[in-house]
Amino acid sequence: MQRPSGRQVDELRPVRITRQFTCHAEGSVLVEFGNTKVICTASVEEGVPRFMRGEGRGWITAEYGMLPRSTGTRMGREAARGKQGGRTVEIQRLIGRSLRAAVDLQALGEHTITIDCDVIQADGGTRTASITGACVALADAVAFLQAKGKINASPIKRMIASVSVGIYQGAPVLDLDYPEDSAAETDMNIVLGSDGGIIEIQGTAEGEPFSEAEFASMLALAKKGIAELHDLQSEALRQA
Amino acid sequence: MQRPSGRQVDELRPVRITRQFTCHAEGSVLVEFGNTKVICTASVEEGVPRFMRGEGRGWITAEYGMLPRSTGTRMGREAARGKQGGRTVEIQRLIGRSLRAAVDLQALGEHTITIDCDVIQADGGTRTASITGACVALADAVAFLQAKGKINASPIKRMIASVSVGIYQGAPVLDLDYPEDSAAETDMNIVLGSDGGIIEIQGTAEGEPFSEAEFASMLALAKKGIAELHDLQSEALRQA
Amino acid sequence: MQRPSGRQVDELRPVRITRQFTCHAEGSVLVEFGNTKVICTASVEEGVPRFMRGEGRGWITAEYGMLPRSTGTRMGREAARGKQGGRTVEIQRLIGRSLRAAVDLQALGEHTITIDCDVIQADGGTRTASITGACVALADAVAFLQAKGKINASPIKRMIASVSVGIYQGAPVLDLDYPEDSAAETDMNIVLGSDGGIIEIQGTAEGEPFSEAEFASMLALAKKGIAELHDLQSEALRQA
Amino acid sequence: MQRPSGRQVDELRPVRITRQFTCHAEGSVLVEFGNTKVICTASVEEGVPRFMRGEGRGWITAEYGMLPRSTGTRMGREAARGKQGGRTVEIQRLIGRSLRAAVDLQALGEHTITIDCDVIQADGGTRTASITGACVALADAVAFLQAKGKINASPIKRMIASVSVGIYQGAPVLDLDYPEDSAAETDMNIVLGSDGGIIEIQGTAEGEPFSEAEFASMLALAKKGIAELHDLQSEALRQA
Amino acid sequence: MQRPSGRQVDELRPVRITRQFTCHAEGSVLVEFGNTKVICTASVEEGVPRFMRGEGRGWITAEYGMLPRSTGTRMGREAARGKQGGRTVEIQRLIGRSLRAAVDLQALGEHTITIDCDVIQADGGTRTASITGACVALADAVAFLQAKGKINASPIKRMIASVSVGIYQGAPVLDLDYPEDSAAETDMNIVLGSDGGIIEIQGTAEGEPFSEAEFASMLALAKKGIAELHDLQSEALRQA
Amino acid sequence: MQRPSGRQVDELRPVRITRQFTCHAEGSVLVEFGNTKVICTASVEEGVPRFMRGEGRGWITAEYGMLPRSTGTRMGREAARGKQGGRTVEIQRLIGRSLRAAVDLQALGEHTITIDCDVIQADGGTRTASITGACVALADAVAFLQAKGKINASPIKRMIASVSVGIYQGAPVLDLDYPEDSAAETDMNIVLGSDGGIIEIQGTAEGEPFSEAEFASMLALAKKGIAELHDLQSEALRQA
Repeated sequence: MQRPSGRQVDELRPVRITRQFTCHAEGSVLVEFGNTKVICTASVEEGVPRFMRGEGRGWITAEYGMLPRSTGTRMGREAARGKQGGRTVEIQRLIGRSLRAAVDLQALGEHTITIDCDVIQADGGTRTASITGACVALADAVAFLQAKGKINASPIKRMIASVSVGIYQGAPVLDLDYPEDSAAETDMNIVLGSDGGIIEIQGTAEGEPFSEAEFASMLALAKKGIAELHDLQSEALRQA
Repeated sequence: MQRPSGRQVDELRPVRITRQFTCHAEGSVLVEFGNTKVICTASVEEGVPRFMRGEGRGWITAEYGMLPRSTGTRMGREAARGKQGGRTVEIQRLIGRSLRAAVDLQALGEHTITIDCDVIQADGGTRTASITGACVALADAVAFLQAKGKINASPIKRMIASVSVGIYQGAPVLDLDYPEDSAAETDMNIVLGSDGGIIEIQGTAEGEPFSEAEFASMLALAKKGIAELHDLQSEALRQA
Repeated sequence: MQRPSGRQVDELRPVRITRQFTCHAEGSVLVEFGNTKVICTASVEEGVPRFMRGEGRGWITAEYGMLPRSTGTRMGREAARGKQGGRTVEIQRLIGRSLRAAVDLQALGEHTITIDCDVIQADGGTRTASITGACVALADAVAFLQAKGKINASPIKRMIASVSVGIYQGAPVLDLDYPEDSAAETDMNIVLGSDGGIIEIQGTAEGEPFSEAEFASMLALAKKGIAELHDLQSEALRQA
Repeated sequence: MQRPSGRQVDELRPVRITRQFTCHAEGSVLVEFGNTKVICTASVEEGVPRFMRGEGRGWITAEYGMLPRSTGTRMGREAARGKQGGRTVEIQRLIGRSLRAAVDLQALGEHTITIDCDVIQADGGTRTASITGACVALADAVAFLQAKGKINASPIKRMIASVSVGIYQGAPVLDLDYPEDSAAETDMNIVLGSDGGIIEIQGTAEGEPFSEAEFASMLALAKKGIAELHDLQSEALRQA
Repeated sequence: MQRPSGRQVDELRPVRITRQFTCHAEGSVLVEFGNTKVICTASVEEGVPRFMRGEGRGWITAEYGMLPRSTGTRMGREAARGKQGGRTVEIQRLIGRSLRAAVDLQALGEHTITIDCDVIQADGGTRTASITGACVALADAVAFLQAKGKINASPIKRMIASVSVGIYQGAPVLDLDYPEDSAAETDMNIVLGSDGGIIEIQGTAEGEPFSEAEFASMLALAKKGIAELHDLQSEALRQA
Repeated sequence: MQRPSGRQVDELRPVRITRQFTCHAEGSVLVEFGNTKVICTASVEEGVPRFMRGEGRGWITAEYGMLPRSTGTRMGREAARGKQGGRTVEIQRLIGRSLRAAVDLQALGEHTITIDCDVIQADGGTRTASITGACVALADAVAFLQAKGKINASPIKRMIASVSVGIYQGAPVLDLDYPEDSAAETDMNIVLGSDGGIIEIQGTAEGEPFSEAEFASMLALAKKGIAELHDLQSEALRQA
């Protein structure tokens, strides 16, 4: 089996994490997984949604979008159609849930951090790139709160990162690009903490069911890839 | 650890599958997982959505809803609010995707089967009960097409069933009810085929991450529970 | 003239009223007029809508829906289409208005009771079945408030019940089922109080106008039928 | 009992019907019931809605709206809120249904006539004024089709007109204005054909139920009032 | 060049401004520019939108609509389609912005004046007629506030009025009617204050670009026309 | 008067036009006016909207959006709110109208080019930057059609570019950034063709009206700035 990109089965695409990509947000990251490019911003607001007020805990929420021509053929603009599609809703719920696992909401105090992940170019794996980039933007937003003296200790419990794995032409592979993703028999998105725990697993048999052995192979690939992503996150955060 | 219901950790709630629950749909099932009760109908239409026309393949899609007072406190009616919530969208996409794995769409021919899962009473696990009941309604709808001579061989490749598993008070448990679900550290929904393959895994760490060992325990529980569900499906379908 | 069901012109379909049909709502009734089956729940909340606050009076409101496959051919789900249709809106306004005539809102105090009528199987007369069943659910919800000590005397001024009448093949008939309803020349829904007064009359000439004499015949049939419905309501409420 | 306006109990407000009120529509009428003023237009289009095509029959449909400041306090604009309210939907369904009773749809051929009733000033009875005025606009639109040679004989089977009646301070009264309407114990809208038949009756007990005797008194008032309205319609149509 | 209407190039259509056209609004004007007829109402409310509260300043906002058959062929009703079109939004923003230039919002105090411009008959220039008529309605609403003692000095800084100009068959013309508007090479809407200043210029080349010289000619025509409109406004306001 | 940025009154911000910014669109440009950054893509589709079919002419349309945190404080996401705001609608109509003036739609043949302008960082002048960048993306999309042999001669009649001018602290200035824009007395957006003609002028007095002399000064500034922008467009298009 030859991957369309010529990559090894356990090889990530070139990943780049660029902080301070735009100037207004408290955290702003351009994350690139090969040709997949996502702008992730983290916006800090005082206060929390009504249903949480007075409990002293913070809140993290996420929204996701794709520019209409981030894809091979133009998609309708969700704002113009007047509603977010099912896939969008599903992805932004996943991003928000995953990032909340990175943070001690009690230690965050009554602040809301809104993550926006906007895909400017898509080539598969936009949700996993979004999670990986957004956690860096989140770390910057938290650092902003600390620098302003709004919170003391960092509420970050662990960094989280995510990658897709799948069965492509019968073989488990890491970090599917669009040609692989659209032909994969199984597609799985895995989110892991930098302390090794599992945050989220979403595996789908696109065609035939997959076996426990295949699952184990995919999970192993994901662990290898996410370890590399955690290193890249750390490296990005070490820079000024 | 004592489960609120007094069940064993690997014990399903009493499950009942009632066919021909309402009279109009080609397949109509009331599925009960304990106090969780869902009406699952399968509606057959000639033709397929525009994007599939002329390819000779069928289509299966699903919609999900909850009666406003199926829950402990009344929820706003989605039709009145003018949009389906994110959770609803996520669940109905899962149901549709899972059921498509049960069927050879080529053998279905250009027919559309629409699955409606409407929760009339909720006590945790509504999506897994929905999938389990809907597959029986789907089988009835397919039998209707065969009886009418619209298709020859049955396009059913396998029955699918689903159950939730989780970590409750530190222990892996099978088929969480609402008191368990709302306190669980980890919540996982698993869909398996009657031939043993994995169709879908969606596992979420609600609080702390979970380990591979915990994952393995939960998967084992799910396999046991779903085997029982497949037996109950078969039994229901044997009746006239 | 022979009715499709073989019933006498002044004969109701078999009517059943099952209380405590679901477990969460303060009042929960399954009402059946022959093959028409509606789940009616009454949900109690503290407080009233903003425009009534501080006046010491309660509020009763109603919502109505049909499961997509409660009918012979599947209807689009209103939640998915993003709006309630005109017929739905018209019916739920009628139900709410009628039930408010059953209750002394002053004696109810600042509580809101929301009635949900969800049709799980339709065979004509869903709105009249809804009103008849909902009034029993309302009585249970009011009894709940009394049992909790939230209100003293019962605010129920009268029970209300409703039936359809019409001109079918030239003859006035009681309680039209779907085959009659879709062919009727005139269709009238009547809501009466158990004290004999008229709460609501909505009569429509589907084809040719109707005469005062026809109106009088239909009203007489409705009075007979509703008297029987009031008896069935009383009987249902006498059970524990 | 003294009516706020000083009118007799069986006295209509001054009614004026002005044809050709605006210049574009095939039928355009300003109807005034005292201070209630409604612009009614009838617009002719070739063809019918998809569900009727090829049957050779025409279609009549109606829409209703109120200018935001047609009322004592400004109402939100429905176009800005993004949906029509329940009352609007109920009224426009009533108008459309009533006007269809005026016309032999077969004789109309495959034309659609859309009635728009827009209230520019409201003082009670906007729906009955709308129906009364719209029937004149409809007659003009039908005459336009005849003049163009699109249809031969007139498809008008009867003129229809409408008035409200009610119980105000214990007495049945004809044609309620806003001060009466907002205080009435019972409110009933009646639509009659010029041949004397009943097209629609919608009677609602706002407070206490009403009796059959009261119903009979109100119906008698309505018959008297509508006879006068039919005369005014005829007179308006006699003018060039 | 001959204008379709036979007017001179610098000739307005007959303009009429009728105050107190409807009875409920604090300001109510029917404005007619030839066959273009718009009802403009100004509604006064205590208080201002949330984002302005406590600053002591007032607010003026505008909404615009067209009756469905105000035009040659019927347009869909925006309330029924569930959203306002782009043209509507653009026009109502222009009206609101222009009228705010007429008023010292500080002197208005915390009152909101909502302008509604509803076109009952359209023949080109509906937005300029709306602005011209609405300013008179606004003046009446402000006078109402003064008469009630809610504000002292008039907050009106200047009257504003508006007209369209354009290039029609190569020649600059004033106050385009629909036949001209739909064929014009350039279309420009100009809003001027009664003190001579420019409030708003919106010029669009429909086909080929226009030159500075053409711009100057059009501006000169607009100044002439608007001077006449300001006189007509003054005259209308002088009447009781 | 000192501009916040220290620029001369007739000095543009540094402008950069980067072609082929993303990889999928037929034309893809990142345009930067100082800190204002907009991604402009041009997407080619076969065919035209229904209302133009069979006329042999092409169509150009535009959509505009801002990433939620492109601004100093986060704005709600329009897709999540379910509608585009008035400002968005107004801007995208301006962009589309302006770009249509660049192209001979007849020579374009029955192709639709959709322009998407998405602001990733905002610092004033997003609509003028959008128009300027979009015209380059449009030129690339047209070249794509020529290279594919879909059209022969280029349908580009002229390049168009746009800049804002305004009165800031009493002085006319060119190309306002956000600090100037939010404090300007007058704000005007001007679109000119590379052949010198005026395509669009939109000038608004934010506070006090402006004079003809001020208008003339602003127009002169705009002409100077847009000449520079046309040079930058040409230069960008000369590169491979």
